[in-house]
Amino acid sequence: MRILGIDPGSRITGIGIIDSDGRYSQHVYSTCIRLGNDAFPLRLGKIYKEIELIIREFKPTQMAIEDVFLSNNPSSALKLGQARGAAICATVMQDIPVYEYSAREIKQAVVGKGNADKSQVQHMVKLLLNLSGKLQSDTADGLAIALSHAHVGSTKIRLQQAMETTSK
Amino acid sequence: MRILGIDPGSRITGIGIIDSDGRYSQHVYSTCIRLGNDAFPLRLGKIYKEIELIIREFKPTQMAIEDVFLSNNPSSALKLGQARGAAICATVMQDIPVYEYSAREIKQAVVGKGNADKSQVQHMVKLLLNLSGKLQSDTADGLAIALSHAHVGSTKIRLQQAMETTSK
Repeated sequence: MRILGIDPGSRITGIGIIDSDGRYSQHVYSTCIRLGNDAFPLRLGKIYKEIELIIREFKPTQMAIEDVFLSNNPSSALKLGQARGAAICATVMQDIPVYEYSAREIKQAVVGKGNADKSQVQHMVKLLLNLSGKLQSDTADGLAIALSHAHVGSTKIRLQQAMETTSK
Repeated sequence: MRILGIDPGSRITGIGIIDSDGRYSQHVYSTCIRLGNDAFPLRLGKIYKEIELIIREFKPTQMAIEDVFLSNNPSSALKLGQARGAAICATVMQDIPVYEYSAREIKQAVVGKGNADKSQVQHMVKLLLNLSGKLQSDTADGLAIALSHAHVGSTKIRLQQAMETTSK
């Protein structure tokens, strides 16, 4: 399966695409979308447009996104929510299923420790995908989210289907 | 000018379209998008898709949207933010400029009182647009936002342009 991982942010959105069979994963593409200082609606449009283009080019079959970090500040939650809404819309509009992971789940899946720090995540992403050189931290997060879905996604999909069956 | 007013919400999104010359306004179309109990990403997709269709059909030239009410609850701010992000993306992707109004500005513009209650807003919307019968409250809010932009929009646009010029 080809997985698109997205780490949404109102200033920088990290993007990572990998191919995975659940055991071995390979880096396909990664980047970070820098949103600059445009008016906020235009920044949301940019997230949407860039992700739409990336999906058209690389044709991922699944998308995984980080649950936004819930600060105590409703104003930042609102901004992050809007960035996340833009990323999800661009994906859903192309009929790609979306899976959500908390920061804890991602760290657990990639490093094996729910409270791992950013540098450990970056280190494991480079190791697992056999990347050398410097890796921008938001880009690493995008790849880490895709890797989490590769590692624990099959369980998550089964659970989601079971819950849907139960709730019917 | 033809104005699309949007009152975003994670369960119901209110939509109102009016034609206005700044003095007199006429009702063109209004509805509310009910999002049901689908998974949250699908609800965001529905907001995007419905607004895209409405824009294609009615061809508004400007969009006005309510600044989301900032509760003390970051989790609701996040949900509302995502709904708002979906609405803004659908608009920006069709190159329509977006203007933002606080609840206070809307009440001030429509009722003349920043702390007016919901029933006063509904009453004035019906009066200003010459509507009879029952008006769903989210739909009324969509129309109220469009009316606010009709009444104070020209000032807002001038201010925005002046600020952009100053900041250059």
